[in-house]
Amino acid sequence: MKLTKLIPASVVASALPLVAFAQDAEVAAPTFDEIGPYILTTLLFLIGGFLVMWMAAGFAMLEAGLVRSKNVATQLTKNVALFAIASIMYWLIGFNLMYPGEWMVEGIMGPWFSVTSLEPVGLAAADASLDYASVASDFFFQLMFCATTASIVSGTLAERIKLWPFLIFTAVLTGVIYPIEASWQWGGGFLSEMGFSDFAGSTLVHAAGGFAALAGAIVLGPRIGKYKDGRVQAMPGSNLALATLGTFILWLGWFGFNGGSQLAAGTVGDITDVGRIFANTNMAAASGALVALILTQVVYGKVDLTMVLNGALAGLVSITAEPLAPSLLMSLIIGGIGGAIVVFAVPMLDKMKIDDVVGAIPVHLIAGIWGTLAVPLTNDGTSFVTQFIGVATVGIFVFVVSLIIWIILKMTMGIRVSEESEITGLDKAELGMEAYPEFYKG
Amino acid sequence: MKLTKLIPASVVASALPLVAFAQDAEVAAPTFDEIGPYILTTLLFLIGGFLVMWMAAGFAMLEAGLVRSKNVATQLTKNVALFAIASIMYWLIGFNLMYPGEWMVEGIMGPWFSVTSLEPVGLAAADASLDYASVASDFFFQLMFCATTASIVSGTLAERIKLWPFLIFTAVLTGVIYPIEASWQWGGGFLSEMGFSDFAGSTLVHAAGGFAALAGAIVLGPRIGKYKDGRVQAMPGSNLALATLGTFILWLGWFGFNGGSQLAAGTVGDITDVGRIFANTNMAAASGALVALILTQVVYGKVDLTMVLNGALAGLVSITAEPLAPSLLMSLIIGGIGGAIVVFAVPMLDKMKIDDVVGAIPVHLIAGIWGTLAVPLTNDGTSFVTQFIGVATVGIFVFVVSLIIWIILKMTMGIRVSEESEITGLDKAELGMEAYPEFYKG
Amino acid sequence: MKLTKLIPASVVASALPLVAFAQDAEVAAPTFDEIGPYILTTLLFLIGGFLVMWMAAGFAMLEAGLVRSKNVATQLTKNVALFAIASIMYWLIGFNLMYPGEWMVEGIMGPWFSVTSLEPVGLAAADASLDYASVASDFFFQLMFCATTASIVSGTLAERIKLWPFLIFTAVLTGVIYPIEASWQWGGGFLSEMGFSDFAGSTLVHAAGGFAALAGAIVLGPRIGKYKDGRVQAMPGSNLALATLGTFILWLGWFGFNGGSQLAAGTVGDITDVGRIFANTNMAAASGALVALILTQVVYGKVDLTMVLNGALAGLVSITAEPLAPSLLMSLIIGGIGGAIVVFAVPMLDKMKIDDVVGAIPVHLIAGIWGTLAVPLTNDGTSFVTQFIGVATVGIFVFVVSLIIWIILKMTMGIRVSEESEITGLDKAELGMEAYPEFYKG
Repeated sequence: MKLTKLIPASVVASALPLVAFAQDAEVAAPTFDEIGPYILTTLLFLIGGFLVMWMAAGFAMLEAGLVRSKNVATQLTKNVALFAIASIMYWLIGFNLMYPGEWMVEGIMGPWFSVTSLEPVGLAAADASLDYASVASDFFFQLMFCATTASIVSGTLAERIKLWPFLIFTAVLTGVIYPIEASWQWGGGFLSEMGFSDFAGSTLVHAAGGFAALAGAIVLGPRIGKYKDGRVQAMPGSNLALATLGTFILWLGWFGFNGGSQLAAGTVGDITDVGRIFANTNMAAASGALVALILTQVVYGKVDLTMVLNGALAGLVSITAEPLAPSLLMSLIIGGIGGAIVVFAVPMLDKMKIDDVVGAIPVHLIAGIWGTLAVPLTNDGTSFVTQFIGVATVGIFVFVVSLIIWIILKMTMGIRVSEESEITGLDKAELGMEAYPEFYKG
Repeated sequence: MKLTKLIPASVVASALPLVAFAQDAEVAAPTFDEIGPYILTTLLFLIGGFLVMWMAAGFAMLEAGLVRSKNVATQLTKNVALFAIASIMYWLIGFNLMYPGEWMVEGIMGPWFSVTSLEPVGLAAADASLDYASVASDFFFQLMFCATTASIVSGTLAERIKLWPFLIFTAVLTGVIYPIEASWQWGGGFLSEMGFSDFAGSTLVHAAGGFAALAGAIVLGPRIGKYKDGRVQAMPGSNLALATLGTFILWLGWFGFNGGSQLAAGTVGDITDVGRIFANTNMAAASGALVALILTQVVYGKVDLTMVLNGALAGLVSITAEPLAPSLLMSLIIGGIGGAIVVFAVPMLDKMKIDDVVGAIPVHLIAGIWGTLAVPLTNDGTSFVTQFIGVATVGIFVFVVSLIIWIILKMTMGIRVSEESEITGLDKAELGMEAYPEFYKG
Repeated sequence: MKLTKLIPASVVASALPLVAFAQDAEVAAPTFDEIGPYILTTLLFLIGGFLVMWMAAGFAMLEAGLVRSKNVATQLTKNVALFAIASIMYWLIGFNLMYPGEWMVEGIMGPWFSVTSLEPVGLAAADASLDYASVASDFFFQLMFCATTASIVSGTLAERIKLWPFLIFTAVLTGVIYPIEASWQWGGGFLSEMGFSDFAGSTLVHAAGGFAALAGAIVLGPRIGKYKDGRVQAMPGSNLALATLGTFILWLGWFGFNGGSQLAAGTVGDITDVGRIFANTNMAAASGALVALILTQVVYGKVDLTMVLNGALAGLVSITAEPLAPSLLMSLIIGGIGGAIVVFAVPMLDKMKIDDVVGAIPVHLIAGIWGTLAVPLTNDGTSFVTQFIGVATVGIFVFVVSLIIWIILKMTMGIRVSEESEITGLDKAELGMEAYPEFYKG
């Protein structure tokens, strides 16, 4: 083809800052040695960020597949809405609350309360944090972790919670609760000073989401008929193909979740570490799935697909606290124990009459704790005691604050649909539309 | 592991040009300073391109979920086929028609009529456009925009259009109509000379696709029973889980759509801008979804999931004309207005008896116009008048040419299935197969 | 926002090796010129790897959509489990068996029998293979090819094979059979020395998977009622939306499959070649789909969506042996012939009473052979005879070894479910759960 191809006008628009940059460059043009790491780490955040964003679709499909068809449209609505709310609340409050420097001191009414703003268009190299990455890409990446925390909650509380109270809780969780507890570690708070280690968030994201879900499940109570006459009533998911799709999406997205958390990609050591994290993450997921497969065969006599899916996810959650240091063999062990946790924790929760529709508490909370406590096995700079303190403080904080908010919501607007609506299905009651209107439901 | 690992033969094959390159290098080996931006921009096009390609799956799932089950297999077939046709037509005619330099002058029979060819294998640095990117990657990326334009049309015309006339229209749209109008701006035509600004294609892709769809909807007429006795008959989509999946896919792909349209990733300013675009794009989608959520609750008393999905998409379309310049707050406003447009435009279209099965006209056409006209709010170098002229010329051109083609197709081979086929469903009539053959339809 | 943002503790943990690296650097700090290609090729493997991992989801959805609803949950279970098993077996045996240097000599009990281990955390540039990429990223990428081979088998044998024998076969295939035959070429074995050329695995992955599937289909026999009274009984897939989704996923993943197989991205020539591969891969898929679309219309009088999907996949398989050298026109021809193969090979297989549920043998085996034999058309350094020898040796090896294993499995634990289970459906019989428990099956 001819090389007379013109550059689209959009480039011309953005050329102005480049010109400005070129003028700076007359002083000292930055070499690729100087800007390469910044560019590559920014790229890591963008790729990692879109992979973690994709996890929102994974949660949506997993949950839509594991609820009964009469509640599918509502569950889908919650998943889209929670992601939208997280995107806005994390911008409005969360990001600046999470990374404020000394927010515990100046906090609350102090200088941190400003909405997030990005770098100017066409940032000059001289004005960039060349030892890190673009703020915009970092914000984009961090936002997705905040949204993930909220996604965890929606599955547990499915099939009986009202739409709006759930969304209000989501706003508080993503705007305040998650940013505060994550700040303790990733914002340079007391946990990071203590030496707590949580590479990509087994505790800060997954267990935190699980604690918020647990508080909600307790306040909300189980679904009608779930624990009847002392027996657990199976309420099988309506679409295991969707649930499997959701699991594969999450598995894929997790490479961004853990790999991006290296927070650097511009040196040989960093990019090699990202590769190591990818391999370990995949191994833990595979191991969690396989252990759940074998255990359900051995324990129940038949393989249980939903357990296999949750086993893979539990493997992923387990390796998230430390996906870098373990060997592949250790990743297999850590993930495999995660898978085993699911198989045994799901019936245990049912014994406690905590109704967790999709198994998010075993997967995210219990396997998240396991993963966090397992860090000292492979990371010499950490201690079991510190890890325990980290889990405990995050857990207590998230659980208690969530509990209070759930109770307030319950006492004010109510959080549970009417008995009739629950039996009819939330789709007709809350939305007035069905996910599969043409398919006869048996 | 042993480091005796051998390099696969495929590398050996491609080593020949590298040798040639090394010989050039004796003259002056290119440093990473010289080739880094080329490599990174090419990488941006490849990543952006596969993300936009993935949007084809998003449209397929969205539309398959929003049509009734008797038409799902046909809708899927159309989506796969239109992407295949776009891939071939854009190669055969489109790309060279769109980026010809002075096609308006030498045009039609001139030197531009040649199929697209790529650079030779193992291109030497000396032969590369080091200030831009690889032609192959650019072609790949641009092709996906062409295919997107066609994807927009298929949803509007669903459930009543014949397969083959639709595919013939697609061939004309992707081979000729889109490349011509896009060339006015991105090919350096009169719109770009006027100062029209459309960063990633609110008008050039989305409104254009919407105008083509509108022309088709007018010529084709509404579905049987849609507007009966002066009332609008709801024809709910058969699978909202698929529709939600499709929306998430589109949301994900849009990061490639807008981010890749920076057309550069090898400087601090460019990669930071890409990050800014990602963050703004996400915000606009979130805002569009949330506004539609709130508005449907307020206006109709119940949340409407399909409106929420279309609200997110309208937010994305709205920010596409200028995803770089706005702040996050402005992105929220621009996307939110897009979401509101959907809520009000859908019933408005119904009043006009324009039957748009999936809501593509509100989402892509009306929100696309809004986004284009909103550019001067944040981009000082643009004017409302110029933006209006751009929308108007593209709109008139695409609408009129599409109308003519639809009418010709109608008069020659016919574009609408028989009444009986429409009632039975296109799957049985056109394909002889069903999407869900085992599920009883109520 | 304030720039006081603290770097998460996870970075601090990984900073120790960086310090060590900085000390090395005192001797001679590596410039970006030296490490850029290593970083970019590693990044290519990570991006390519996650795209190919995503293909596992594609196979799962394709197969879940093409089996009847009574077997969907089992098919999903197989797909998740086979990916998990491949991940573990390729680590345990496969990777070191495939890339051992001279495994044919020292092999079997020799030094290769060690599980795969990755580079240490925070690898110093001085210790890295700067002319290639990180071992971890390479392992991650290669593993996905191994898993793909296994994914091909599961579709053919669907709806009648027992879960556990299938998984045992998968372990042997991914741990031993695939690594051995792939080693002949990619491990520097006799095929690569002969000049055999198979860029990304038309033979080594796709035909190999197809031969293993063919052996299984012969030993297993057709489904009950498939060939009744000399007629072929259609058994339509239960969910064509899922099948289409699966195809789009595979199409997307294939950019990683073929593009990543360039095995380098850090020079102008390499990244341009990756772009060329992306464009050619897309063209072949588009052409395969379109040819199948047109041929089914012409031959059968109606378009067949499953043929169109398999046509796209056959186009992809066909171009996989040489996605770099062809022009776009040649890619269109090669992929189009792949699409035609599917249309004619599917009924041919049925005539031979080989029951291939999803059409994997036409798509992966026959189109894979075609693609391999077509390499000399565009790649001067190859010969038809050598290509034939490559296909034949791989084919005979994989087919014979697979046949032996299937026969052993049949004679020991049995590979086929009971007649009753097959009629009831594997989901109830093998898993005790259904994929769509609420939908009435007609």
